[in-house]
Amino acid sequence: MDNKFRIIEVKQSVFENNNRDADLLRGQLREDGVFLLNLMSSPGAGKTSTLVRTIGELKDELGIGVMEADIDSDVDARAVSGTGAKVIQLHTGGMCHLDADMVRQGLKALDTDGLDLVVLENVGNLVCPAEFDTGAVKNAMILSVPEGDDKPLKYPLMFSICDVLLINKIDALSVFDFDIALCEERARKLNPDIKVIPVSAKTGEGMSEWTGWLRETVGNYRAECAR
Amino acid sequence: MDNKFRIIEVKQSVFENNNRDADLLRGQLREDGVFLLNLMSSPGAGKTSTLVRTIGELKDELGIGVMEADIDSDVDARAVSGTGAKVIQLHTGGMCHLDADMVRQGLKALDTDGLDLVVLENVGNLVCPAEFDTGAVKNAMILSVPEGDDKPLKYPLMFSICDVLLINKIDALSVFDFDIALCEERARKLNPDIKVIPVSAKTGEGMSEWTGWLRETVGNYRAECAR
Repeated sequence: MDNKFRIIEVKQSVFENNNRDADLLRGQLREDGVFLLNLMSSPGAGKTSTLVRTIGELKDELGIGVMEADIDSDVDARAVSGTGAKVIQLHTGGMCHLDADMVRQGLKALDTDGLDLVVLENVGNLVCPAEFDTGAVKNAMILSVPEGDDKPLKYPLMFSICDVLLINKIDALSVFDFDIALCEERARKLNPDIKVIPVSAKTGEGMSEWTGWLRETVGNYRAECAR
Repeated sequence: MDNKFRIIEVKQSVFENNNRDADLLRGQLREDGVFLLNLMSSPGAGKTSTLVRTIGELKDELGIGVMEADIDSDVDARAVSGTGAKVIQLHTGGMCHLDADMVRQGLKALDTDGLDLVVLENVGNLVCPAEFDTGAVKNAMILSVPEGDDKPLKYPLMFSICDVLLINKIDALSVFDFDIALCEERARKLNPDIKVIPVSAKTGEGMSEWTGWLRETVGNYRAECAR
């Protein structure tokens, strides 16, 4: 296939040394038996509504805490505060992602005493959050059907670092041109082990597979921590 | 309204000094009579499909160039390359936004000779691109209906710096809970002068208002440049 255009590499990037902080935080969480899940997506892909349903299905089994990270507003914390989970809103003051030290500050403010699972709802962004290890045990991302099945091609790092890909808003599949099998194939090319689960946070379809995975993964982690 | 959660400020940010480069670039573009439009949105909001339709409506009147900026892939440049516009794909090597110097490199590679309008399709991201002046004459953003009408609350800077807000995918309004008037009100609270145009890049609804605005704005700019 011939291109009618040229490809130009324009690159300039600055990275912080965040990995050590993330490893220290992961070690501390392990001592405390707290499972930290880092949940990422584009703006409006459905992180909060997925989370509200997830909490509804797991709250009787697990002590759940939520850190809602946003540049501004408390819309999401309000939405989650009705679920019975312990919630705080983190404001990043313009920052496009959470790093391990910001997460540490958030966990301290949340107070993880009595919690088994803490979910960090990261800033809505498919780029920057993928570059910063938050100290989480697992990374999950949501891609929603209206965004299109080409996103693994355009935001490869995010798909590479996630353990789980939830394909959300499958209730809207009839309205959009989205090929789940193709999207999964593209994600697997970047990350052969990624677990792909189509869901609808609106109708609940697929949610039990997701909460089943999360229940089992948190259970295994906590059993390891107790050793 | 009482909150069941606390709000914690966690902030750490580094900014580059990009403004001078952007002003220099804007001056150069003015000398050349080239109008640069910076088009931003979340991943999958419809920048490329909106652009394809825009080019279709304006290509007989204006010489149009497009710079497709992505972290990876050439999906968008391929989509635009069939329109008759002059297209290049910029790869940002992981970077989450374009700064003025990257844009300058892109324009040099594109070669603006004979072009009246150049559109920069920025990286899909509602956060970082808003922080970096690209040297553009005008900033436009797309918010799509599936993303939700609360986005001005959560990504205020983006809505503050844009001259135009296109609300895209209005053909899907029946499937999603999105209040256009409320979204507009929220955007105007941040930016009283923002022009809000509901569109569907799929059906073409609203597109003539958008291309009318663009035609007039480019025309006025070029008349000023010629003085």
